[in-house]
Amino acid sequence: MTERHRHYFDYAASCPPWKEALDAADRCALEFPGNPSAQHEAGRCAQETWETLAQRFTALCKFTNGRLVACSGGTEANNLAIRGVMNRYPAGRLLLAADAHPSAWFATKEYAKRVDILPLEKNGEISPLKLSKMIRKDTLLVSCMHASNETGFVQNIAVLGAACAERKVLFHVDGVQAVGHLPLDLKIVPVNLYAFSVHKFGGPRGFGGLFVRFPDLSPQILGGDQQDGLRAGTENLPGLAGSVAALEQCLARIETEIPRQRELAAELVASVQASFPSVLVNSDSAHGLPGLVSLSFPGIDAQVLIADLDLQGFAVAAGGACHAHRREPSRAILALGRSKREAQGTIRISMGHATRRDEVLALAEVLVQAAARQAALA
Amino acid sequence: MTERHRHYFDYAASCPPWKEALDAADRCALEFPGNPSAQHEAGRCAQETWETLAQRFTALCKFTNGRLVACSGGTEANNLAIRGVMNRYPAGRLLLAADAHPSAWFATKEYAKRVDILPLEKNGEISPLKLSKMIRKDTLLVSCMHASNETGFVQNIAVLGAACAERKVLFHVDGVQAVGHLPLDLKIVPVNLYAFSVHKFGGPRGFGGLFVRFPDLSPQILGGDQQDGLRAGTENLPGLAGSVAALEQCLARIETEIPRQRELAAELVASVQASFPSVLVNSDSAHGLPGLVSLSFPGIDAQVLIADLDLQGFAVAAGGACHAHRREPSRAILALGRSKREAQGTIRISMGHATRRDEVLALAEVLVQAAARQAALA
Repeated sequence: MTERHRHYFDYAASCPPWKEALDAADRCALEFPGNPSAQHEAGRCAQETWETLAQRFTALCKFTNGRLVACSGGTEANNLAIRGVMNRYPAGRLLLAADAHPSAWFATKEYAKRVDILPLEKNGEISPLKLSKMIRKDTLLVSCMHASNETGFVQNIAVLGAACAERKVLFHVDGVQAVGHLPLDLKIVPVNLYAFSVHKFGGPRGFGGLFVRFPDLSPQILGGDQQDGLRAGTENLPGLAGSVAALEQCLARIETEIPRQRELAAELVASVQASFPSVLVNSDSAHGLPGLVSLSFPGIDAQVLIADLDLQGFAVAAGGACHAHRREPSRAILALGRSKREAQGTIRISMGHATRRDEVLALAEVLVQAAARQAALA
Repeated sequence: MTERHRHYFDYAASCPPWKEALDAADRCALEFPGNPSAQHEAGRCAQETWETLAQRFTALCKFTNGRLVACSGGTEANNLAIRGVMNRYPAGRLLLAADAHPSAWFATKEYAKRVDILPLEKNGEISPLKLSKMIRKDTLLVSCMHASNETGFVQNIAVLGAACAERKVLFHVDGVQAVGHLPLDLKIVPVNLYAFSVHKFGGPRGFGGLFVRFPDLSPQILGGDQQDGLRAGTENLPGLAGSVAALEQCLARIETEIPRQRELAAELVASVQASFPSVLVNSDSAHGLPGLVSLSFPGIDAQVLIADLDLQGFAVAAGGACHAHRREPSRAILALGRSKREAQGTIRISMGHATRRDEVLALAEVLVQAAARQAALA
């Protein structure tokens, strides 16, 4: 990166790729150029490598009793999870968390009459009791995020999954922000569909997937017989190789990274609060997504704040990158009970393995100054 | 590749990646790690690079008066083209070529009552006259391949497109086999939707797209606002960089490669015909896709023939890789008027820039011997 964007605090939008992941993808591309569907030796080698790598990736997430359906990313994976169930059973309803990512929220339009919205508690939590109560007779699928892309709130998906299982409804989790950032043991989570995106943890762009324990899924990309007909299109074998390598890099240091990033996040929050007491904190440094800080500065335009920080070399975000250019207040922040004014003054700071303490301290200082400038103008 | 699959004749299934393409993708991934949707400098740099590369790729295909919608590959691109129109106008009909790839043929199920099948002439051609006659009042979209993935037949898409334009119906072309292999001037072709896949010409896996001159397309992958809402999901910037580099490699040698591969194909066909006169030739070395040879050995099981060649180090295919493991006779070969028995004895040999003449001569010899062995057993 150039001097101008030297302090990167937007890991939640995209994590810079691990060199090891790019190298693994390239080695795989050169060593196994055959189409995995082809019947010759080059094809069989590619197919076997695909299966070995898929098993490895699945094992790293401790996912059992199901299969991986690889696709082009978290958006396609979430689309597949929801359409895969909703199209298969046209009479069923979806219970969708109020802070769902746009790649799941599309269902509120596509299945407008078949979606109920699951509210959040003031802290961002989904109450298992409320979830149970909201499940109707014709509810088919419950969908929520594992970790919020805007506040970093981490749901207790084991408990929520158990509530779904008890009521015999399917459970889809958008794990895009969680994989590579939280220790994952999907073996013990009663989840039917779990989506991930690999560029969020330093894997190659254009790769993601869905862990599937519900075989009766309606496919959305149609054509060849790849992946047992669940997702047509030539398998992206180098992408999978890069994903395994990236996840290995993350997991190799996750035990030290989690406490380190939590501490940095806590320090940042404390420092900003000390100098700017009116700031509202939407994230939880101790229990949320490590290194993700969400702050609301009431009455301040987050866009202006972000531009100010950017000029000083600090890259932070207003919320999810997917709708960074929209000016509407964030649905996820409003779901916490924040006002429109508070939501519009919200910035997201997200850290990664390369984030240094001196950068965090510098960001705190620059952020407080910038917020003070904006507050004086407001 | 290992010794066991040293003679690769399955370029049409997947073209081994150009080292230059992998390097370009990696450089881009490391230099522009920001999410193109992000508002900070890293995001803007990524967005600008995306736009520059998209313009470059578009210019290499001489596509004008439209835009590129990037996605995960040819399958998704063909799905998007057909669904994008058929879902937008639920009353319209699709006129689909009889040899369509499975990624377009899915429409015969998804829109079962809204699809008409456009037959081929005995040589594989689509007659513009027949096409015009088959367009009904409610026909909305005509879809065909630019170059057949099974026979290599190259349609005159300028003439077919003109026939569609005259009748005011939309024209979708599946260009997956053509881009990088044929000189392309989409400026002069009246095509509304043109799909491509980059691994077919040595670009990275998991990348493809649709050239769009018809803006009113219904998107299929939904979520963020990327690509003006036409295809949600974080843009695969390194994938696009690799695609540009791969296409540049192809185009830099296309003027010598086309005659070279045509000559090799002609030599192969002549050699096989001389020793095995009952062979039927489905491809056209002089006018078809350069280096693609499709041969039918009546009464011989292509699967056994392929396995025999494979054991001797020659990788050839039965037809499209997407359904290589199915045993049904190829729809594309039947569409030429071949019998089921002939179709089941069909193999596809496809060459690329690394194919050498001595390999082709060796393949001819080995193929004739293997066919003779199978014929003796039949």
